[in-house]
Amino acid sequence: MENVVSFIRENRDRYVADLVEFLKIPSISSSTRHNQDTERCARFVADLMRKAGLQRAEIFDTPGHPVVYGEWCQAPGRPTVLVYGHYDVQPVDPLDLWVSPPFEPAIRNGELYARGSADDKGQVYIHIAAVEAHLKRNGKLPVNVKFLVEGEEEVGSENLGKFVDTHREMLRSDVVLISDTAMFQRGVPSICYGLRGLCYFQIDLRGSSTDLHSGSFGGAVANPGYVLAQILAFMKDRNGKVTIPGFYKDVKPLTARERKEFKRLPHSDRKYARDIGAPALTGEKGYSTLERTWVRPTFEVNGILAGFTGEGAKTVIPAVAMAKISMRLVPDQDPDKIAKLFERHMKKICPRTVEMKVTRMHGGQPWVAPIDHPAIRAAAKAFEKGFGKRPVYTREGGSIPVVATFADVLKIPSVLMGIGVPDENAHAPNEKLVLENFHGGILSSAHFLDLMGRGA
Amino acid sequence: MENVVSFIRENRDRYVADLVEFLKIPSISSSTRHNQDTERCARFVADLMRKAGLQRAEIFDTPGHPVVYGEWCQAPGRPTVLVYGHYDVQPVDPLDLWVSPPFEPAIRNGELYARGSADDKGQVYIHIAAVEAHLKRNGKLPVNVKFLVEGEEEVGSENLGKFVDTHREMLRSDVVLISDTAMFQRGVPSICYGLRGLCYFQIDLRGSSTDLHSGSFGGAVANPGYVLAQILAFMKDRNGKVTIPGFYKDVKPLTARERKEFKRLPHSDRKYARDIGAPALTGEKGYSTLERTWVRPTFEVNGILAGFTGEGAKTVIPAVAMAKISMRLVPDQDPDKIAKLFERHMKKICPRTVEMKVTRMHGGQPWVAPIDHPAIRAAAKAFEKGFGKRPVYTREGGSIPVVATFADVLKIPSVLMGIGVPDENAHAPNEKLVLENFHGGILSSAHFLDLMGRGA
Repeated sequence: MENVVSFIRENRDRYVADLVEFLKIPSISSSTRHNQDTERCARFVADLMRKAGLQRAEIFDTPGHPVVYGEWCQAPGRPTVLVYGHYDVQPVDPLDLWVSPPFEPAIRNGELYARGSADDKGQVYIHIAAVEAHLKRNGKLPVNVKFLVEGEEEVGSENLGKFVDTHREMLRSDVVLISDTAMFQRGVPSICYGLRGLCYFQIDLRGSSTDLHSGSFGGAVANPGYVLAQILAFMKDRNGKVTIPGFYKDVKPLTARERKEFKRLPHSDRKYARDIGAPALTGEKGYSTLERTWVRPTFEVNGILAGFTGEGAKTVIPAVAMAKISMRLVPDQDPDKIAKLFERHMKKICPRTVEMKVTRMHGGQPWVAPIDHPAIRAAAKAFEKGFGKRPVYTREGGSIPVVATFADVLKIPSVLMGIGVPDENAHAPNEKLVLENFHGGILSSAHFLDLMGRGA
Repeated sequence: MENVVSFIRENRDRYVADLVEFLKIPSISSSTRHNQDTERCARFVADLMRKAGLQRAEIFDTPGHPVVYGEWCQAPGRPTVLVYGHYDVQPVDPLDLWVSPPFEPAIRNGELYARGSADDKGQVYIHIAAVEAHLKRNGKLPVNVKFLVEGEEEVGSENLGKFVDTHREMLRSDVVLISDTAMFQRGVPSICYGLRGLCYFQIDLRGSSTDLHSGSFGGAVANPGYVLAQILAFMKDRNGKVTIPGFYKDVKPLTARERKEFKRLPHSDRKYARDIGAPALTGEKGYSTLERTWVRPTFEVNGILAGFTGEGAKTVIPAVAMAKISMRLVPDQDPDKIAKLFERHMKKICPRTVEMKVTRMHGGQPWVAPIDHPAIRAAAKAFEKGFGKRPVYTREGGSIPVVATFADVLKIPSVLMGIGVPDENAHAPNEKLVLENFHGGILSSAHFLDLMGRGA
């Protein structure tokens, strides 16, 4: 590994220069105006793979944006690592809040500012660079490596599920390596081993055929805005527990070990509340903030609309009321099962005085990896070598739907080695990548391949 | 009276044509965008008065929308009738539910559809037409008549109290005549002797400085949309009683006589529910539908808005949530006192996890009149002559705050001779006026002036 490490150190500046070119391409997947840019970006990624020495680098068309696939598979008997990432980026509005233009990368204080720098171009690049270092110095890789870099992550990976399903053989691997998350804290390398799932609904209530005068009719008819408030308020008890019967049945209890590990993490409720501007934190009784966001399911109102919401006063009883609600799920809750429990519960608690329509929007499986899996142990060691620091084990409250896809379709675990930072502004103006993490990430990736080759 | 009645019959079509022009003016008082329209509408009303033959027709500026005043006072020794009405109208959203545009009056099946047709332009016009008929045929009126037509009724008549107070002398009269209510049933002329008061608030909650990702933060912070639902749901108990401490303290109990009279009225819960398209009726336990809407106070949600309410799904925890709420009040509840009780209660029940702002929007006193007053008896006879049918005595769940103002400041009673219909859609899309009632109203008003001139 010494020669690989020295190659990486020597090429430090060139890596940044390569990434800058990558970042100049405005590959915004949600905007059809940028279709040519996403195509150009896919070709750029395939070129990077070829230059790195991969045997194969190919662009696959999909009904949406293309998928870039690359591979080097000349290590028979050794494990196969599938690197997943995405070359598409989020939109950039509001543009006037960017200090430097989003597609003109600029370095300030050791941070590279550009849309996509952290999410996910910089994190895709580290693995291509690691592969190149091995191939350039040793003429071979310690494991077989496959790359799957899509262009639709920021628009829900609509075509990826089908692509994975129809290319099972090509994608066959032992583990997926993903760098698309942030470290728990700047300077604290983190391995994320759990994600929450999702179950999203729209509820529509109707109480009358038109809005009614609240003077003439008030007191004698159900107000769907009020009934909606009652139904929602009824969904959690005084302790913040969701009241849907059976909701917690499949929830894996928090282990004493996890609770202990979480407590060790450098977290401050006070700072957390201050950062988001919340007067105080709250949640399910008996759990800490990290436990509440990582290992406990939730019930949230994502939107409510009823009646008159403009300036001034209007004395109506709304005819209809609408809420968007979602539940974050944890292992082993199943989105389909929870959806059914929710629908049944809604039917039961909705009064006869209104008509209700419950619409299932979408869902995603929760996911958790065993911390003692060889690939996760390899990732931990690789981080320690790359950053000179032991990583922490974290979970994440959000979802990365492809992780569930890989588990379901390819039947392989994922290792999440993200090198972003919490204040990286992914999805916001002034997205940035900490260059120290970028270089540490390349080193860590090179070590990961080495360790996987030795059977961790 | 015969010549007056024949004049009215001859001018039937012209009255409708006049009213159509009146209705074309979008005099929405709650929207500053329509300030020029309300001004134009005030000038239109003054012109109508002049054309009808009033001696004086004048526009008075206020800090809000102008007041139109007109008079004919050449019947010394005879009583003076003050006609009150308003030329402003409610907002029109949701616009897409209107069959024909709100400010392009359209007649369908003998009904005139337009915003303001029933509330209150059509009902203001009937008295101007009645005065015109007397003056055109007899050159004089049987009584002295004053008109007070304001432009802020739909926004709480904010400046009217002060106007009445500073123009006591000009407005000095024996009785106020108001047509701004609906008949109990189509074809059943009704005299309304009681109104509910109002207390209207906006509640704003903030839980964080920006919308939060419901995956990353869900479970650890208060969701203001959810907290709002909880606060609202907490405002009524299982029996539909408002839970604000002291709320019912000043409520006059329903008398046995009233309960008996109400039971005699042609009311069917089934038809009532069907007419408004409600699956079932509901309300405060122990009271009938008429009792609930006429003599019992309420708590209603008039609007709610929080988070994402567009098409599809967005996984946010809203930063803010807003509700418009109002309480209908009955004698002897006082809006100021109730407002204070509400504000104190809000402060008490709002959790520390959100910031709350409670804004008092407007209020109005409840009112009840003695049924055996001479002016009310005259109104009953006038209705019998105008519609060929004895009227019933009713109360109304809505508010006409000025009725309380006239009682307080001018020390005179009000007579409510409304000719709207229960399904007129005041404050809702497709507001309409039954043209048969419009003409019957003009006849009744002409008879009322005549009867008042004879000392009823």
